[in-house]
Amino acid sequence: MSALLADLITTGVPPLDAGAMAAADARQAQLTKPAGSMGRLESLGSRLAGMYAVCPPPIPEPAVVAVFAGDHGVHAQGVSPWPQEVTVQMVANVAAGGAVVNALARQVGARVCVVDVGVAGALLDLPAGVGHEVELVSDRVVDGTGDFTMGLALTRAQAEAAVAVGVRTAERLIDGGAQLLVTGDLGIGNTTASAALIAVFTGADPGGVTGPGAGSDAHMLAHKIAVIRAGLERHRVEPADPIGVLAAFGGAEHAALAGLMVAAAGRRVPVVLDGVIAGAAALVAAALCPGVTAYLIAGHRSTEPGATAALAALGLEPILDLGLRLGEGSGGVLAVPVVQAAARLLREVATFESAGVAEREES
Amino acid sequence: MSALLADLITTGVPPLDAGAMAAADARQAQLTKPAGSMGRLESLGSRLAGMYAVCPPPIPEPAVVAVFAGDHGVHAQGVSPWPQEVTVQMVANVAAGGAVVNALARQVGARVCVVDVGVAGALLDLPAGVGHEVELVSDRVVDGTGDFTMGLALTRAQAEAAVAVGVRTAERLIDGGAQLLVTGDLGIGNTTASAALIAVFTGADPGGVTGPGAGSDAHMLAHKIAVIRAGLERHRVEPADPIGVLAAFGGAEHAALAGLMVAAAGRRVPVVLDGVIAGAAALVAAALCPGVTAYLIAGHRSTEPGATAALAALGLEPILDLGLRLGEGSGGVLAVPVVQAAARLLREVATFESAGVAEREES
Repeated sequence: MSALLADLITTGVPPLDAGAMAAADARQAQLTKPAGSMGRLESLGSRLAGMYAVCPPPIPEPAVVAVFAGDHGVHAQGVSPWPQEVTVQMVANVAAGGAVVNALARQVGARVCVVDVGVAGALLDLPAGVGHEVELVSDRVVDGTGDFTMGLALTRAQAEAAVAVGVRTAERLIDGGAQLLVTGDLGIGNTTASAALIAVFTGADPGGVTGPGAGSDAHMLAHKIAVIRAGLERHRVEPADPIGVLAAFGGAEHAALAGLMVAAAGRRVPVVLDGVIAGAAALVAAALCPGVTAYLIAGHRSTEPGATAALAALGLEPILDLGLRLGEGSGGVLAVPVVQAAARLLREVATFESAGVAEREES
Repeated sequence: MSALLADLITTGVPPLDAGAMAAADARQAQLTKPAGSMGRLESLGSRLAGMYAVCPPPIPEPAVVAVFAGDHGVHAQGVSPWPQEVTVQMVANVAAGGAVVNALARQVGARVCVVDVGVAGALLDLPAGVGHEVELVSDRVVDGTGDFTMGLALTRAQAEAAVAVGVRTAERLIDGGAQLLVTGDLGIGNTTASAALIAVFTGADPGGVTGPGAGSDAHMLAHKIAVIRAGLERHRVEPADPIGVLAAFGGAEHAALAGLMVAAAGRRVPVVLDGVIAGAAALVAAALCPGVTAYLIAGHRSTEPGATAALAALGLEPILDLGLRLGEGSGGVLAVPVVQAAARLLREVATFESAGVAEREES
């Protein structure tokens, strides 16, 4: 385990700054709007002040979505209608700027970084001239995980190495100026691993936290639940041993996302969660280091039932609820303007005093 | 009534283009994502194709929020804790760039246009050097409406003139390049007029569609409902006569917003609705010209109960639900990136064929 991660796990991440949050709450009441009228943007703004430990908080830009890609040995059990090579193909699509996450990032002014942490098979060569807008990083710790119905998905050393990839990625992006990170993921089969992780950490039955992912029909969904149940029977792992849980079920992208979250929280940088893969990874991160949750912002409510279960366990309320279930970071990226707006209100809106606007009359 | 408006009311606005919508639906299935995985962004993208009558639709930018300002004679009945001069002061605040709507517009790259259509009292002089980012238009048809508990809020001629202000504003903004309009409003007392309008058009009891607005306490809310009930008793107006309803209850900003919606729909330009004032005005617009509703996009669900009643009557599902109740156009502006993203996906995401990504295997 990296020294930095071990240190964060031992000492914890810094708590939200109570003084900055109180100052933000007080400032909300001075801005030219009825008190409370901006609803959840007001509480989010105060949380951002607590995370950055300053009021008003910075408008968190640039935002960078870190898309971790990995493959899953459990794919061999027939849990997805998509062939496994789609992972490699989608890494190329993201690197070339053609995926949904790229279009959404352009919309909101975010950057995209795609990290191969555990893809099976060689990455594809990109045509000359494409890929300049996207950073593609090779930091692979495994050529796809093992099938968790047959054995471990990862060794403990691989799981720790994948967490360290996320830590490194967060450090590099934050050192490069990122003030807001968004979780992204690519990996055929990763909703199966996510459901297994969520079942372990929440204690829920797999039937209640497993969804169709990228398009399983009812028959395949029932099979997917049975596969997860078999995995849970085989691996008697405990939430108190998050590295052991990652080793049992993977994936490498969940491990990396958990590392990203812990490291970002250690640097007081908020992380916007995408969907069910992010929710599963956040449960790992919270098990590694409970203080991390204070730095997480739920970007949206995925239609995958495991996402809602994970957010409930984390105590997070999503910003958007638009029936999304794509992954890649899409729902997280789409929430970025709302997060930035929450900070911008605290920075830019005039006060009653500065604008010469009368305050309400007390009855 | 303006000739253009009379023409739109007589001939109707153009229907959504079925061919463009079918092409958009077909294109959604070719983009590199599981079919349906972008949820409401997919249906919104197809609606945008139908509105603009082309697939893919343009990314609708620039967006302009048109903030219509007016005062309300019913303020004299004690329906708001805010003094009436706050309307004039907030017009100055928006013109100077210091209000919430300005900060949100900067966040999403939208422009702000504030139109005095019925403010009581002289507008304030702005300090030199401010106001350049915002267009401030004086197109006043009345110096505040009359108190609807004592008489008409507007004459029929004033109501028609205020509708025409909205038509003119839409024409001017669209001629200036706007591809997306957002409704905004300023006016102390305007949630009272909104609740009266919504009660008339939905048939609901005022008790079910009246909220605290900018901060009435329980006592003032009960009084506000009683005032609206008295107005409804006095003015026996019918939804089939929307100009008569506007004359009874006002405000000038509701009339202007209705005119904006009709004119925008006539030009095939979508309109993003903000909250309860926009919902009330949309009911007026739909009564003037039913086809308008096809061009309306509900930006968010305001906490005002009348907003939800209006959206239900219009058959619109809001994009955001963040507990907002400010007005000014704030919730509509915040939804702009989602609307633009829905179009952008259809324009920019690679297809399975173009990206060389394998499609799902049929079972």
